[in-house]
Amino acid sequence: MVKGAFDGVTVLDFTQGVAGPHASMLLALHGADVIKIEPPEGDWGRALGELKGDHCAHSIAFNRGKRSIALDLKSPDGIAVVKKLAAKADVVMESFRPGVIGRLGFGYEDLKKINPKVVYCSISGFGQTGPYSKRPTVDGLIQAFSGMMVMNKMPDGTPWRQGMIAVDVTTGLYTFQALAPAIMRQFRFGEGCYIDSSLMRAAAAYQGAKLMEWVFSKGNPPVLYMPAGSYKTANGYIMLSAMRPHHFRLLFELIGREDIANDPDLQSHDNRIRNAAKIIKALNETMPQKTTEEWIEILQPKDVFCERVNNYTDYLQHPHVKATGAVDWIEQDGMGALPVANIPGLPRASEHPPQQYAPHIGENGPEILRELSYSAADIDAMLSRGGVRAPAPAVKAAD
Amino acid sequence: MVKGAFDGVTVLDFTQGVAGPHASMLLALHGADVIKIEPPEGDWGRALGELKGDHCAHSIAFNRGKRSIALDLKSPDGIAVVKKLAAKADVVMESFRPGVIGRLGFGYEDLKKINPKVVYCSISGFGQTGPYSKRPTVDGLIQAFSGMMVMNKMPDGTPWRQGMIAVDVTTGLYTFQALAPAIMRQFRFGEGCYIDSSLMRAAAAYQGAKLMEWVFSKGNPPVLYMPAGSYKTANGYIMLSAMRPHHFRLLFELIGREDIANDPDLQSHDNRIRNAAKIIKALNETMPQKTTEEWIEILQPKDVFCERVNNYTDYLQHPHVKATGAVDWIEQDGMGALPVANIPGLPRASEHPPQQYAPHIGENGPEILRELSYSAADIDAMLSRGGVRAPAPAVKAAD
Repeated sequence: MVKGAFDGVTVLDFTQGVAGPHASMLLALHGADVIKIEPPEGDWGRALGELKGDHCAHSIAFNRGKRSIALDLKSPDGIAVVKKLAAKADVVMESFRPGVIGRLGFGYEDLKKINPKVVYCSISGFGQTGPYSKRPTVDGLIQAFSGMMVMNKMPDGTPWRQGMIAVDVTTGLYTFQALAPAIMRQFRFGEGCYIDSSLMRAAAAYQGAKLMEWVFSKGNPPVLYMPAGSYKTANGYIMLSAMRPHHFRLLFELIGREDIANDPDLQSHDNRIRNAAKIIKALNETMPQKTTEEWIEILQPKDVFCERVNNYTDYLQHPHVKATGAVDWIEQDGMGALPVANIPGLPRASEHPPQQYAPHIGENGPEILRELSYSAADIDAMLSRGGVRAPAPAVKAAD
Repeated sequence: MVKGAFDGVTVLDFTQGVAGPHASMLLALHGADVIKIEPPEGDWGRALGELKGDHCAHSIAFNRGKRSIALDLKSPDGIAVVKKLAAKADVVMESFRPGVIGRLGFGYEDLKKINPKVVYCSISGFGQTGPYSKRPTVDGLIQAFSGMMVMNKMPDGTPWRQGMIAVDVTTGLYTFQALAPAIMRQFRFGEGCYIDSSLMRAAAAYQGAKLMEWVFSKGNPPVLYMPAGSYKTANGYIMLSAMRPHHFRLLFELIGREDIANDPDLQSHDNRIRNAAKIIKALNETMPQKTTEEWIEILQPKDVFCERVNNYTDYLQHPHVKATGAVDWIEQDGMGALPVANIPGLPRASEHPPQQYAPHIGENGPEILRELSYSAADIDAMLSRGGVRAPAPAVKAAD
């Protein structure tokens, strides 16, 4: 078993949804003990889609390797437990609306007093300051706000939203990008810090090169290649990308369209951009004449960039995906085998227990309370008062 | 000045394009000394779009904070220099086609012999093993391969490719996610490792929850909210997201469409999904009657999730973006002021010199050679033999 980079690091994680949980999961998978503090009704991210008990695909995907305790943060018991946990945490993460955690008494300024080396990370939609800071938001609205929907616009110019919570997932990666070095600084230099991460900033950083290009080109970013896009074939779609200039001629010769390969209007990059309609029309005429696989057999050996447009079933069943172990199939709680995409730099999920299980609401509460030296009687009393929610009996039975 | 997490860490970076350079830039911005080894003609990522000398927006965006040396890896001088650099590097990164770096004599197995604690990271399209491993690829083809284009499909079902090199940028984040903990392990435990990062794996990890959801739902992932999407207004587009059930009624009451709010066919989530066409038709009729700003003034105070669909100009000029310093404007080499999106967890670009400059081809070659104890005469001889490319005179003059 490889030693985890963050072995021995304790993370107190109040975040809900996807962005924060994604970041804290990566800490957990690299060895940290991530204690997920949930409200008694559970993280709202547990209901992003079809439910399987108290989970959905998103909550499983982004909460593996953690332990959960469900606390009512307005109850004296809940507050007492958080105080004990916060005093010993190396990292604290929260995603309440800006200002809320301070009113609960667990803001950065509060915790720094009892825990001066703490790495404290807030994750929000628009950041902790500025006129929009308290505005509620969700992934799709930041796709709109950040320019991403215009960047992703359809051929007729209509702004288009990606069919996944792309900004949330990306914010998880940028937040991990902030946290991992902060923990390294804590370790090397004994320094804590405050991190103000947000969907807005992560979306902008993700599109950083596009923002520069937009300004370079005064709002008219150049088309890089023509053609580059997906075209209908006899049985699906093929993606074509004529990246190098010689690919253009080669592609049209290989598909039997010498008229286009030799068209005097299409012999330079600029001309191909200007007369793109001609190119697209020819591909729409010719590509449906063979299957995707037939085209790939013609184009691929000549190094013309092309790829079958796969859906997730195609991807999961692809021989290369299978041969390389890019995806492992994991069983959790009788939900059936679920695909787990293996993350670069981590052991395979099938060989790494933390990747195989996301906790139920409050599942680890009693054990976490015992570690805080609460007696069995104390714990029973807290559970019965309701400030700490007891794990569901079904969960206990499955233990 | 904050101490960098990776201060004192030396990175030998052979990667080109976007994915590898993005990851190594994040190491540089967190303090590492990243030595970018380029071929004499420069990283091909310098030509991804409109040229500004030997740069484009992408090469500036993803190569800040590094130093560059341009070497001919087939020349004896180039090989001798790499040998010296490799012996002292803490991290080595490469993105050649699998197998190439081994033939050059700088594969993981070679370097481990002279540098047993090295963290070695290969970045490729399809990974180092499996039937597709040597297949050349680019961002758009992995969007096709990974299912991303189907996930991002247009309303008529046509697979749609994002208008940016989304997988490359994401692979940079996942690769940093692998490298930062690997450096932490090297530091804590004296352990090196090999990381096989790829566009294919990063794309799958990014879509990990969607893959699970696809399998959960047998290929029919549920629609989360209806409506959720962008609609034309009198002067642009507005993004609407009726996340909570009560938002549906509120939205249609506020826009004066009680007929829809009260429609018996639309009173449950399932019914709204089933009769989505009715909802979309009503929004297409009504939303063009006012401007985006007028609608937001009506909807926002009642907490109906809505946002203006911005392009990058709107984003850069937005009062909240300006008030929070989400973007700084940086000058490089007379290219004019360029927007730099401030990355969570890093100092602001305007206060952090490494974020303000990406090197020209081979710009730091002579200084890097001096640090390796080559004499002035040796350096001149190497430059004149051409194994090390001299920095362009214009660049020297600008120093």
